Amino acid sequence: MAQRLGRYTLKMEHMPSIQGYAAVVGKKEGEGPLGKQFDYIYEDTTLGESSWEKAESRLQTDAVNRALKKAGVQSSEIDYIFAGDLLNQCISSTFGLRSLDIPFLGQYGACSTMAQTLALSAILVETGAARRCVAVTSSHFCSAERQFRFPLEYGGQRTPTAQWTVTGSGAAIVGNTGNSPYISAVTVGRITDLGIKDANNMGAAMAPAAYSTLTDFLQDTGTKPSDYDLIVTGDLGEVGSTLLKELLQKDGVDLSKNHADCGLLIFDKENQDVHAGGSGCGCAGSVLCSYLLNRLKSGELNNVLFMATGALMSTTSSQQGESIPGVAHLIHLKSSL
Amino acid sequence: MAQRLGRYTLKMEHMPSIQGYAAVVGKKEGEGPLGKQFDYIYEDTTLGESSWEKAESRLQTDAVNRALKKAGVQSSEIDYIFAGDLLNQCISSTFGLRSLDIPFLGQYGACSTMAQTLALSAILVETGAARRCVAVTSSHFCSAERQFRFPLEYGGQRTPTAQWTVTGSGAAIVGNTGNSPYISAVTVGRITDLGIKDANNMGAAMAPAAYSTLTDFLQDTGTKPSDYDLIVTGDLGEVGSTLLKELLQKDGVDLSKNHADCGLLIFDKENQDVHAGGSGCGCAGSVLCSYLLNRLKSGELNNVLFMATGALMSTTSSQQGESIPGVAHLIHLKSSL
Repeated sequence: MAQRLGRYTLKMEHMPSIQGYAAVVGKKEGEGPLGKQFDYIYEDTTLGESSWEKAESRLQTDAVNRALKKAGVQSSEIDYIFAGDLLNQCISSTFGLRSLDIPFLGQYGACSTMAQTLALSAILVETGAARRCVAVTSSHFCSAERQFRFPLEYGGQRTPTAQWTVTGSGAAIVGNTGNSPYISAVTVGRITDLGIKDANNMGAAMAPAAYSTLTDFLQDTGTKPSDYDLIVTGDLGEVGSTLLKELLQKDGVDLSKNHADCGLLIFDKENQDVHAGGSGCGCAGSVLCSYLLNRLKSGELNNVLFMATGALMSTTSSQQGESIPGVAHLIHLKSSL
Repeated sequence: MAQRLGRYTLKMEHMPSIQGYAAVVGKKEGEGPLGKQFDYIYEDTTLGESSWEKAESRLQTDAVNRALKKAGVQSSEIDYIFAGDLLNQCISSTFGLRSLDIPFLGQYGACSTMAQTLALSAILVETGAARRCVAVTSSHFCSAERQFRFPLEYGGQRTPTAQWTVTGSGAAIVGNTGNSPYISAVTVGRITDLGIKDANNMGAAMAPAAYSTLTDFLQDTGTKPSDYDLIVTGDLGEVGSTLLKELLQKDGVDLSKNHADCGLLIFDKENQDVHAGGSGCGCAGSVLCSYLLNRLKSGELNNVLFMATGALMSTTSSQQGESIPGVAHLIHLKSSL
């Protein structure tokens, strides 16, 4: 049974296993530094579908099916699927997963969704409410640009703080038996809003949420950053990562030694013209479900904090002059029991 | 600990208590048959805010604060809040609840959201992962029409199958101690898609999901509709309710005696010009968190199945010619342990 540590953290006594996982991405992501880690790279942004939204749905279908296959389980052996994405009404998830016939719980945490779906999967498995769950998320550069910013055909110029939405999906099968990697603890974040209003500077809007959740976890567990091999944020990018370190520094907490950000890992900043880094649910999702879990599985990493952050605004809220609330959820991953 | 009955149902051994609940609605809902049941009726659709979206956020803030007060608990005593709504990126929830400082898990289940948030709250409380959770949802006629159909100023004519989105919010505090009503079991639904494409006929799109989930529950528990005082659907309205009964009839299951639909309960069909009935997350949310829970609390009802259904499409998916997938989640409510 899950045990509460401090105010915000749930410690897993049985440590659910990530029985299988998979990440599929687009061409640009495949050309980046992590290219060899992904399960499949799609050369065409449409995946042969008639729209980018349908293509994004296909990314989720494919990631889940590959993860199921790698775990050696059928969809009928899954009790719940936790899924979400950035599109209005989460249609990548609902259309991508409708044929699986698995009890479906749609999640909305913006770019924090991979951590949110993993957290709920882990809690349900740990407590015996489920034997096996799927956690999945996706994003697609073209569907996200069309919905949140400008139609691609417009050719708008991107600001230096802008991030590049990752085309990709990550899926993980969480079960009550199995081998490494294991989920050791989860901390669900509170909404944080420091009044940032620039929709082209998501990193700055999300950094305070990451600061809040990481601080909660460190306080609840009585640990410090140096107790972990790696502390990985989702898609703070360059601006948000710097800000997070500054916020922690003020409390005397040093994150300079072992921090990485999925948004900075997935693209080559010098050669891929992505400005402040990658972003989107699919960024943290695809980096976790390839590079990071691979390194935990091999034992190269043993003790990792994965913390995905989300910016909880919409185009309507931005047009109405609202600021951008952020949230961050943290998953403590281990390579041994 | 939750015990699995059959393939899809979780039976609650400890039966979490709904410690407090509240519903706030708009003027039209206040003028309907349930008017006296609501905690507050807003005469003005804007609630004094500068937009309908901000007004909808206020409905959630208000419903949660009233439910907390009635339960006699502070927001600091809540472990998790499960919240969702119909607006793009669920901004009613994120903006309405950002000031509460409660660990936040955004849910997207369209109009099934009240059942989804209650299901997850109940599971976490039952299994000891949380001591107390909040389940909340909302909808607003004006923000929904603007986003999903036509701007109100356009004055478009409504089809006979069209439903009227409820302006309202319902919130419930679920805890591991307390009095009636209790949550006895939950069944999480699978996505169902029979190919309905008419976005003005949501009832027909959602009825197959209700049929699927109710059938799962009845099979898992070995019960029949007559074993319950009332079986309440969320917002199937007139068209969807008729269809649900027809689908069940083919299996020899009789729902004609004790079925009600929140969308048909909340408005006076003859005098309020709502065509096929009320709809929206706030429909099932506000009817549950007033009329239904009041009758369970008083013992007038003892054994109720509450099943909210959601249509999982977006304007984009409809424009791209997609059908409308549906989902339904079921909560078994009891007035005594």
